[in-house]
Amino acid sequence: MQLFAKQGLGIGGYDTQLRDNIRSWLAEDIGTGDVTTRTTIAADSVMKAVIHVKEDGIIAGLPVAETVFSVVDPALSFKAFVQDGDAVTKGTVIAEVEGSTHSILTGERLALNLMQRLSGIATKTKQFVDALEGLPVRLVDTRKTTPGHRLLEKYAVRVGGGSNHRFGLYDAVMIKDNHIKGAGGITAAVNAARSAIPHTMKIEVETESLEQVNEALHCGTDIIMLDNMTPERMKEAVELIRSRAPHVVTEASGGVTLETVRSIAESGVDVISVGGLTYSFRSLDISLDLGGKKGRA
Amino acid sequence: MQLFAKQGLGIGGYDTQLRDNIRSWLAEDIGTGDVTTRTTIAADSVMKAVIHVKEDGIIAGLPVAETVFSVVDPALSFKAFVQDGDAVTKGTVIAEVEGSTHSILTGERLALNLMQRLSGIATKTKQFVDALEGLPVRLVDTRKTTPGHRLLEKYAVRVGGGSNHRFGLYDAVMIKDNHIKGAGGITAAVNAARSAIPHTMKIEVETESLEQVNEALHCGTDIIMLDNMTPERMKEAVELIRSRAPHVVTEASGGVTLETVRSIAESGVDVISVGGLTYSFRSLDISLDLGGKKGRA
Amino acid sequence: MQLFAKQGLGIGGYDTQLRDNIRSWLAEDIGTGDVTTRTTIAADSVMKAVIHVKEDGIIAGLPVAETVFSVVDPALSFKAFVQDGDAVTKGTVIAEVEGSTHSILTGERLALNLMQRLSGIATKTKQFVDALEGLPVRLVDTRKTTPGHRLLEKYAVRVGGGSNHRFGLYDAVMIKDNHIKGAGGITAAVNAARSAIPHTMKIEVETESLEQVNEALHCGTDIIMLDNMTPERMKEAVELIRSRAPHVVTEASGGVTLETVRSIAESGVDVISVGGLTYSFRSLDISLDLGGKKGRA
Amino acid sequence: MQLFAKQGLGIGGYDTQLRDNIRSWLAEDIGTGDVTTRTTIAADSVMKAVIHVKEDGIIAGLPVAETVFSVVDPALSFKAFVQDGDAVTKGTVIAEVEGSTHSILTGERLALNLMQRLSGIATKTKQFVDALEGLPVRLVDTRKTTPGHRLLEKYAVRVGGGSNHRFGLYDAVMIKDNHIKGAGGITAAVNAARSAIPHTMKIEVETESLEQVNEALHCGTDIIMLDNMTPERMKEAVELIRSRAPHVVTEASGGVTLETVRSIAESGVDVISVGGLTYSFRSLDISLDLGGKKGRA
Amino acid sequence: MQLFAKQGLGIGGYDTQLRDNIRSWLAEDIGTGDVTTRTTIAADSVMKAVIHVKEDGIIAGLPVAETVFSVVDPALSFKAFVQDGDAVTKGTVIAEVEGSTHSILTGERLALNLMQRLSGIATKTKQFVDALEGLPVRLVDTRKTTPGHRLLEKYAVRVGGGSNHRFGLYDAVMIKDNHIKGAGGITAAVNAARSAIPHTMKIEVETESLEQVNEALHCGTDIIMLDNMTPERMKEAVELIRSRAPHVVTEASGGVTLETVRSIAESGVDVISVGGLTYSFRSLDISLDLGGKKGRA
Amino acid sequence: MQLFAKQGLGIGGYDTQLRDNIRSWLAEDIGTGDVTTRTTIAADSVMKAVIHVKEDGIIAGLPVAETVFSVVDPALSFKAFVQDGDAVTKGTVIAEVEGSTHSILTGERLALNLMQRLSGIATKTKQFVDALEGLPVRLVDTRKTTPGHRLLEKYAVRVGGGSNHRFGLYDAVMIKDNHIKGAGGITAAVNAARSAIPHTMKIEVETESLEQVNEALHCGTDIIMLDNMTPERMKEAVELIRSRAPHVVTEASGGVTLETVRSIAESGVDVISVGGLTYSFRSLDISLDLGGKKGRA
Repeated sequence: MQLFAKQGLGIGGYDTQLRDNIRSWLAEDIGTGDVTTRTTIAADSVMKAVIHVKEDGIIAGLPVAETVFSVVDPALSFKAFVQDGDAVTKGTVIAEVEGSTHSILTGERLALNLMQRLSGIATKTKQFVDALEGLPVRLVDTRKTTPGHRLLEKYAVRVGGGSNHRFGLYDAVMIKDNHIKGAGGITAAVNAARSAIPHTMKIEVETESLEQVNEALHCGTDIIMLDNMTPERMKEAVELIRSRAPHVVTEASGGVTLETVRSIAESGVDVISVGGLTYSFRSLDISLDLGGKKGRA
Repeated sequence: MQLFAKQGLGIGGYDTQLRDNIRSWLAEDIGTGDVTTRTTIAADSVMKAVIHVKEDGIIAGLPVAETVFSVVDPALSFKAFVQDGDAVTKGTVIAEVEGSTHSILTGERLALNLMQRLSGIATKTKQFVDALEGLPVRLVDTRKTTPGHRLLEKYAVRVGGGSNHRFGLYDAVMIKDNHIKGAGGITAAVNAARSAIPHTMKIEVETESLEQVNEALHCGTDIIMLDNMTPERMKEAVELIRSRAPHVVTEASGGVTLETVRSIAESGVDVISVGGLTYSFRSLDISLDLGGKKGRA
Repeated sequence: MQLFAKQGLGIGGYDTQLRDNIRSWLAEDIGTGDVTTRTTIAADSVMKAVIHVKEDGIIAGLPVAETVFSVVDPALSFKAFVQDGDAVTKGTVIAEVEGSTHSILTGERLALNLMQRLSGIATKTKQFVDALEGLPVRLVDTRKTTPGHRLLEKYAVRVGGGSNHRFGLYDAVMIKDNHIKGAGGITAAVNAARSAIPHTMKIEVETESLEQVNEALHCGTDIIMLDNMTPERMKEAVELIRSRAPHVVTEASGGVTLETVRSIAESGVDVISVGGLTYSFRSLDISLDLGGKKGRA
Repeated sequence: MQLFAKQGLGIGGYDTQLRDNIRSWLAEDIGTGDVTTRTTIAADSVMKAVIHVKEDGIIAGLPVAETVFSVVDPALSFKAFVQDGDAVTKGTVIAEVEGSTHSILTGERLALNLMQRLSGIATKTKQFVDALEGLPVRLVDTRKTTPGHRLLEKYAVRVGGGSNHRFGLYDAVMIKDNHIKGAGGITAAVNAARSAIPHTMKIEVETESLEQVNEALHCGTDIIMLDNMTPERMKEAVELIRSRAPHVVTEASGGVTLETVRSIAESGVDVISVGGLTYSFRSLDISLDLGGKKGRA
Repeated sequence: MQLFAKQGLGIGGYDTQLRDNIRSWLAEDIGTGDVTTRTTIAADSVMKAVIHVKEDGIIAGLPVAETVFSVVDPALSFKAFVQDGDAVTKGTVIAEVEGSTHSILTGERLALNLMQRLSGIATKTKQFVDALEGLPVRLVDTRKTTPGHRLLEKYAVRVGGGSNHRFGLYDAVMIKDNHIKGAGGITAAVNAARSAIPHTMKIEVETESLEQVNEALHCGTDIIMLDNMTPERMKEAVELIRSRAPHVVTEASGGVTLETVRSIAESGVDVISVGGLTYSFRSLDISLDLGGKKGRA
Repeated sequence: MQLFAKQGLGIGGYDTQLRDNIRSWLAEDIGTGDVTTRTTIAADSVMKAVIHVKEDGIIAGLPVAETVFSVVDPALSFKAFVQDGDAVTKGTVIAEVEGSTHSILTGERLALNLMQRLSGIATKTKQFVDALEGLPVRLVDTRKTTPGHRLLEKYAVRVGGGSNHRFGLYDAVMIKDNHIKGAGGITAAVNAARSAIPHTMKIEVETESLEQVNEALHCGTDIIMLDNMTPERMKEAVELIRSRAPHVVTEASGGVTLETVRSIAESGVDVISVGGLTYSFRSLDISLDLGGKKGRA
């Protein structure tokens, strides 16, 4: 159960679901059987393989890779030499796997596919976090994640030093332009939501003008998103909110790049959300090499 | 059943599995319910939404988006104005959805997340294919796809004008360095495989030198991969293979970028495989806007 | 999709999961086939059945029953004469189902089992809500629901006029005595949670004394639960919180019965949570009678 | 496999399905993760927890609770101090769990929700069984069980000293009023069923008058249900059946309460069925307290 | 819902599970797509196909084939010209399917594989039933069915004129030699079972001698199996049982072939069970031919 | 993972799916519990059982039986005395299982059902292979396998000394008469397929005349099936293909029996496919007997 928690980053209770996903993802690759390994490698061959990175970056997904190999074959031994969140340089051996050669080769591609993507996300997140160094602001992700991979990708964002926005449509109210139109205004939407949701749930409103900020403040919004505002307008909005309702959280959104993120943060917002953390990314190049001692089980 | 086949690109018989995946991906986002839409929009509200692209690219995934909306609510009507594979420019309205506002908003994020990624892959593939214009070579993908998305991503490669490599570990033999080591040489590996696999299955061998190419030719390999060879060495290998066994397919792999792909192709290889088609990518920016007529069901 | 939303109470996007549950629950009852109906009733027999209540109460679960019959046989027609939330008296015909006699008899037991339980919960909730009439307080449920039935039971609480607490361990932080011990105090626990959770999520702390209330207030808790306090102590706590942090929500818990609930509410708390709403209950007696016209399909 | 059999009460072969159900029920509660425990408790914290009852009753579900904790974390150690079926008094410690604090807290609610309900059913059943002490009659349940929980609830009835009626629509024929109408009489229905069912299956007929009892006897019914008859009429019916067909089983049904059950039994029936055993119930109050030694894994 | 019931043979409520099985069986064949049909046939091609038998036999499985085509493509139209249970001769066209050529070809193999096997079972059963003509005996199957196909194969036995034995380990008690040894004798086993099972369930005992028959009679067994007895011994046993307990059912088992079955029946047993009905069989040869009108959708 | 690979015959990576299938097949038999074993055998009884064959044949499925018992109860110990592929004679003890009597009896039927069928297929295959002794030809199966059992049945064919044809519609192109008609000729079909499939996939064409053979050769087919040709015509076709395209594989199909197979092979074809290997078969008679030491766990 403590697979991810050991990282201090955690996905409490996700292990069972992760194992199910991995079984399904393995099936996608293995189908009716790894015909190459089965026919060319002795069934009782045992080897050790090393996993190493081929470029600099932040590692994420070691417990995921460990789980892949464990699902393929519980008898494989997996040993990590770094932890999720560590910065590594080209050539670093990050882990080794030992046991049945068949099992190692069968799990290889999925383990790498997952670690490469998650490390790519953690590496990109870290670049944004570094750009914000020293500022009291939180960098968060969005729901623009890969279908079926949201929990893992949001974990990778945490590994890279970021924080998470809501996990889905169910754990916070986010009133966007379409809902405002549908409800007949911000006040109507917030009131309708407030009366129907658990008292444990927050309401966020997306605003595009100071008028909207004002209205959101008046009806008791918990979080105000400042969407695509200029830095000056954003600063003005933040000051307005701070003065009126210091416990309300402010969030900047829209047009955030590595170049613009610091100036946006300097407006004083509490949170900056960046869809691009999980939306477009470069995988980190990671390889597995069989080698080391060779023998029979 | 003919969802994708209409595109002339097809994933025969995949519809049922796709609907299952979409249900699971929707559950990831919806969880215990879309609390915002449920509480702020009248249950019987009906609207029309338009889907438009915000940058130039190749569209892929329209039938996928259609399926998402159909799974969410079979009563929604979806109308596409372009087809998968069409080149679109910023601002093009590619489709519209009409029906229950609740249903449209609930399906929006997943439909976009899928189309954005698939269109990103198709767009990147098209850039490679364009770079090879006029040359008798096939651009193909690899197994470096997103876990759980392989069929869709390989479809997007076809949409972009590329072709597919094997679908998994089960539908072709691919003897890599590790298998050669494990079997005690190329000849041993190919012979072991040949005797144990169906006569309907091909054998590909990864080679790194002319010696290996020679050995692979001698033992009756069907496809020879030339891995990370210089263009000169590759040309030499291709000529050797052509002269000895014209029905053997040659495949180049390793270090393929938009800059290098044409010079690699000029070596005369039949196929070039590019992991980066599905490995790292920019999503194409696509949006859904509610609007048009508004009313009650 | 709008099945529940029509009730103005809604479980947005739950339909698909509900249908899956119903298929599984039907399988539990039907197993290898309804041997009595299959062997004694003509396969093409069609009839109409009426569903009526045998005691006074609040109806909940009509859309659930409708879904049961629709899963069993999409050709059945279901017509409800009242809506979820309506108070009904003994003898009221609440719905009728018409179509294949086989299908009606196969779905009967599950449809009734579900409606009886949900109506029992709604009826009990309504009794508590009535006891609070005129007071500005919200009655909410807990996580003490039947495993596999949480969404439906929380829906029944809403139908009865109550509100919901958090849906599970994932959508709000609830720091109880065990967490306080584990973290080394309220302040440590709240700070640890705050830094690691999304900014969209609230933190609730369970307190048993004014000292704990004070500590919870100081570290920025969003909701303070007053657990098993006397009415006087509770009133004191509420006034303390109101004066210091008017946006903090207060919740009373423990020992809440129909007899005590009003006096607890008079302490001024915002919310009262009652495990017993879903924990122990009397099902409402509901029956299905075949009758009406009889014929062949 | 012997989980329940150890109790001498058994659900042979149910373990696998039970573990699947528990995984699904855990997912309902945990969702995307237990955010409180993950963020406030050290990942390597280990503790011991005791489970104790807070009121008198009959315990049922200890093997179920053990399975819950084992599914959450196979490394947890669970030790029961009483057995299912034991009568316990307020304050009794019935079990302890030791291991990862995260795991204990994650499984707590589901383990308690299940044991509380099952113990409530066993306790109620025991009250009925005690009311029948000394009489040669069997107390049985019905199909009015919680959807998805039938096997467990029927097990709890056995734990409380009762017996089971058929498990579903598939394992015995039960001809009710509706089937009699549909088939054109008891004789027609019984004959139609007899010819079409396995010779290993029994036929029960629901009767409301002595005429119906007579007809059921004539056509070779195996079990005759006497539905809602007065004690005198019931006695008359039992004597009629005994004299004519001593191997036919008699079953009383309808209006059975703790007050009436003994007088009904005195009519001489073999079996009394009570829907209320699983239909409406009070959960038994059971708690888990963390405590004991504390440390790091 | 009435798919099978129309045949007067029925698998009440099995449709949903059958559709799930068919989806899984289709996936086994289709995998990542029917690559031949997709690439060689125009996506909008529509044709009519006829299904005809290539040898004499009893047809079983038409509703199953219809369901296969309906799962593949709900728009296909399926028309049967005979009914399950009909005797057909070589060359008979039993059904036609019309619609998308892609869909027909994708479902063809599974539809045929199922009908061929089920018709093979029905045909073999009919041979046994014919050999028993005029005798008051029931021919039944066993649990020696193909894993995953039990309901369908037991249906095919009914189609062929046979009856069913119990469906599994759960719907009747069958005390075999191993249980007798384990329990310490027939009487101990029967008594132990009787006290622990529902009153709706029968007990069958396997006997190999008249002593065992006597013991089984004394302890109130419902069904007595006479296992591998000579015809004379069997006759003696039947007479003993008839004289003592006329409501007890007798069942012959062991060494039953088409040659021996009638002489076994003449011993007067009520039931003869034959594992070989589903254990070893010849499929009935059935083909699908595309043809008829051809066009575009 | 190496379950089957130990046999040198292998189904790489299939273990997980096999365990899932076995769980589902066990559920079919066990349902709500093995009521006989649960009620008649002491829960802590432990015994040893031997599995022996009752007629001569080739054993297949020992690892499958081992997996069945391991899924039922991981604590059971299974010991095989022969290997899949071994020829055994009547009376041979092929394996023993030791542990909980409940677990052994619960798994018995499924383990036998599977081994009996697979051994029947292996035995039949061996007869064909023996008939071909000394000839350079490969005997292969078809897609006429039992739905849900394809991988196991194709494994049994390998165990019996045969080879496999393609696994499904997805791993090779097979152009049959219907596709030829649909595409407008062999050349059109082959060209359409070639351009759309991966370069790793082969194309087979079914031919019925020398003209078709000629056309298939011209358009670059990889495998040519000679369907229902006379031996003379077949020989002519093989010689034509050998002379023109020695790397093209020839396959004979249609009307293959134990009597005709050798003369067909003498035509010189590379491969002979026989649907009857898995289409109709006699199960091999295998039994499990409880015995040996007896005791308590």
